[in-house]
Amino acid sequence: MKSFDFYAPTYFVFGRGRENDTGKYIKKFGGSRVMIVYGGQSAKRSGLLDRIYNSLKESGLYATELGGVKPNPRSGLVYEGIELARNEKIDFILAVGGGSVIDTAKAIAMGTVYDGDFWDFYSGKVPDSALPVGTVLTIAASGSEGSPDSIITNEKTLEKTAAEADCIRPKFSVMNPELTESLSPYQTACGVTDIISHAFERYFTNTPDVETTDRLLEGIVLAMLHEGRRVMEDPSNYEARANIMWAGMVCHNDIMGADRQQDWNSHHLEHVLSALYDCTHGAGLAVIMPAWMDYCVEHSDGLRFAQMATRIFGCQMDYNDPKRTARAGVEAFRNFLKSIGMPLSFEEIGASANDIDKLVEMNNIGEGKTGGFVALDKAAIKEIYEIAANIR
Amino acid sequence: MKSFDFYAPTYFVFGRGRENDTGKYIKKFGGSRVMIVYGGQSAKRSGLLDRIYNSLKESGLYATELGGVKPNPRSGLVYEGIELARNEKIDFILAVGGGSVIDTAKAIAMGTVYDGDFWDFYSGKVPDSALPVGTVLTIAASGSEGSPDSIITNEKTLEKTAAEADCIRPKFSVMNPELTESLSPYQTACGVTDIISHAFERYFTNTPDVETTDRLLEGIVLAMLHEGRRVMEDPSNYEARANIMWAGMVCHNDIMGADRQQDWNSHHLEHVLSALYDCTHGAGLAVIMPAWMDYCVEHSDGLRFAQMATRIFGCQMDYNDPKRTARAGVEAFRNFLKSIGMPLSFEEIGASANDIDKLVEMNNIGEGKTGGFVALDKAAIKEIYEIAANIR
Repeated sequence: MKSFDFYAPTYFVFGRGRENDTGKYIKKFGGSRVMIVYGGQSAKRSGLLDRIYNSLKESGLYATELGGVKPNPRSGLVYEGIELARNEKIDFILAVGGGSVIDTAKAIAMGTVYDGDFWDFYSGKVPDSALPVGTVLTIAASGSEGSPDSIITNEKTLEKTAAEADCIRPKFSVMNPELTESLSPYQTACGVTDIISHAFERYFTNTPDVETTDRLLEGIVLAMLHEGRRVMEDPSNYEARANIMWAGMVCHNDIMGADRQQDWNSHHLEHVLSALYDCTHGAGLAVIMPAWMDYCVEHSDGLRFAQMATRIFGCQMDYNDPKRTARAGVEAFRNFLKSIGMPLSFEEIGASANDIDKLVEMNNIGEGKTGGFVALDKAAIKEIYEIAANIR
Repeated sequence: MKSFDFYAPTYFVFGRGRENDTGKYIKKFGGSRVMIVYGGQSAKRSGLLDRIYNSLKESGLYATELGGVKPNPRSGLVYEGIELARNEKIDFILAVGGGSVIDTAKAIAMGTVYDGDFWDFYSGKVPDSALPVGTVLTIAASGSEGSPDSIITNEKTLEKTAAEADCIRPKFSVMNPELTESLSPYQTACGVTDIISHAFERYFTNTPDVETTDRLLEGIVLAMLHEGRRVMEDPSNYEARANIMWAGMVCHNDIMGADRQQDWNSHHLEHVLSALYDCTHGAGLAVIMPAWMDYCVEHSDGLRFAQMATRIFGCQMDYNDPKRTARAGVEAFRNFLKSIGMPLSFEEIGASANDIDKLVEMNNIGEGKTGGFVALDKAAIKEIYEIAANIR
C-alpha cells in the first residue's frame, strides 16, 4: 500500500423525494444567491426544476439558471456561466444533472473566483478556491457527485482534459434513484459501464499488497453485474437503480483507490474517441476497455486479469496457463457488456479505422509513455485502437 | 435500500511516519491548546509520545496530557479529563491510542462544553457540539478513528453504553500501520475479530436489496481472513497491518452500512461480558458472535448465513437444505477465529455459566426485545449465552 491522504467531506442525502430539501442543504452550506446549472429540456418537462425552485424559494434563496449543458461538456458554456455568476454575484452553484452538468458547475465554480482563464485548471494548474458546489444527481455514472474531478472539452482544440482539486468536491449531493428512471436503457447501461470502468482503472495497478481495496473494487463490479442486468430487465426497478447510484459514488470518491497507483489509460484513450465522435463516454469505454485489456494481458504476466477472471467472473484458474484464464475473464467482461446492450466495436459508435493515426496523435503523448499499470507509447495506443477497430 | 444521510468529513493521513505531522493537522483544524489523551506506558516507552510532543512544539501548540486510559474505558477518567480541559482552557483533544483512548477523548470533548453530566450522552441525549478531536491510531480494531461513536463503561453501574453524534467524528486521523507492530499477536487478532464483527453486524439485516453494500462488506471480511492469517504468521508484516488498518476504518465509518437496518446484538451481548469480566472486546466477540449465529440460523430462514457461507467461506450451497450450508459457514467462521488464536468458549475468557442469569439481566431489556435482524428477548439472550458456555 502507498501512503496517502484521504478526505471526502461531501454530505450525501440519499432516497426518494430528497431533492425537495435542496434549499435546506444550500443554506446549511452557506449559499444565498444560487446558479442552477442543468442540461436539456427533460429537467424542465419532468417538473424536477420546478421542485428545485420551490425548495430554494421555501429556504428564501435567490436563484438564476444556466441550461444547455451537453454530454462531453464544452468550454464555451463554462465561460458563459462564469460571466453570469459574476454579474449576478452568485455564491453557490447547484448542478442538477449528471456528470457533464456537475463537471460544468465545478468549472464555473473555479473560474468565477479566478483572475485568469479557467482552462488553466485543465492544463495542470491547481486552484486554491472555488465557489461551493452542490448537486442533485440524475444519472448514476460519473461519480462526480462525490469526487474532486471535473472533465471539460475545449471546443477550439478538442482537448478533453481533467481538473482535480479538493475545493471542488461537492458540499452536498442529493441522490434520489427515482430521478434516473427517465433515462433510456442505453443511457442507464452506459452509466453502469462507466462505474465498472472506475473500479477497473483502480484495480489494474502495480502497487502490491492492496488486498482490502482489491476486494472492495471486486465487490463493486460484482454488484454492478447483478444490478446492471436487473435494471435492464426492469428499468423501473428502484432498488437496482439505488444500488447502482450508491456504487457510482463509493467507487469514485477514492476510498478504495487512494492506496494505489492507478492506470486511467482506458479513460485517456476514450476521451479522444468521445471528443472526435461525440459518443457517450460509457459507450466509448465499452469499446476501449476490453481492447486495452486484450493488449495488457499480452504485455504483462496476466495475473491481475486472472484474478479478475476468477474472483469476479467465476472463471476457473488455469495454473498451467494463467493467461488463458485472463483471456477468459476479458471475454466474460465483453459478454456482460453485450448483454446490457453496450457496443464493443468501432463501427457501433461511428468510429473509423481510417482515423486511427489521428486518434493516436490526439492522445498527445509525443514520444513518451502514459499510464501506470502497463505504460503505453504511441505504437501501443495504435495497437489498442486497432484491436477495437477489428472487433466485429 | 433505506433512505439515509451520510457524512464522514474526517481527514485521513495514512502511512509510515505520518505521526510526525500531527501538529500541522491540529493547526489546520483550528487547535492551539491541546490535551493529549493516551493509555499506558507503552506510548511513552516507544518514543511515540515524544515524537507527538515534538510535532506539536514545531507547530507552536501548547500541550498538556491525560494518561491512564484502560481497555473498556471508564467514566471516572472522563470526569478527570473534563476538569483538566476546563482548567487548562483546552480547545483540541488529541487521542493517541486505540478505541478506548479515542472513545475517552470523544467523551471528554462532549463533556467539556456541556453544562450537565457527560453521561447524559450515553443515556440517549444527543450533543449539539464538542471540542474538536484528532487521533493518532495505534490499534486497528474499533474504527473509532473514522466513526461518530464512543463507548464508555460507567464504573458505578457497570453499564457499557454508546454515544453517537456527527460532532464527535474526528477532524483528522493519523494512521501509521507501523505503530501497531508493538501489539501482541493476541491483541492484533482481537482487532481483526472486531473489524470482522463490524462488517457482520451490518451484514445481517432484514433490509432487502442491499447488494452493493453486501458485496463491500463481504470484501472486507474476505480481506481480513487473508490479512489476519498473514499478520499472525509474521507480526512484522507492514503490508498486512496496513490492509487491516484501512479496513477497520472503511468498515466502520458506515459508507457500507448507512443504507440498511443494522443488528448489533452481538455487540450488546458482548459489552455485558467485557463489563463483568473485563475481557478484551474482540475476544468477547469471538465467543459471542458465532453463538449468536448458531441461534439466528435456527430462528431465521438461514439464507443470509448461507450467503455468508458461500460468498465468504467458499462453502457449497445445499439447495435442498440451505441451513446446512448456513451451519457450515458458522463452523468455518469459528475455525478461522481459532486459527488466529481467538477464544471460542466462556471458559477461555474467564466467564462462568453460573453468571448467565446475571448477564441476561445486565442486558437491561426488561420484557422487551432488542436488535434488528432477529429480535431477541430475555429467553433468547439466555440461550445464546448458554450456547457460548457449552462450547468446549
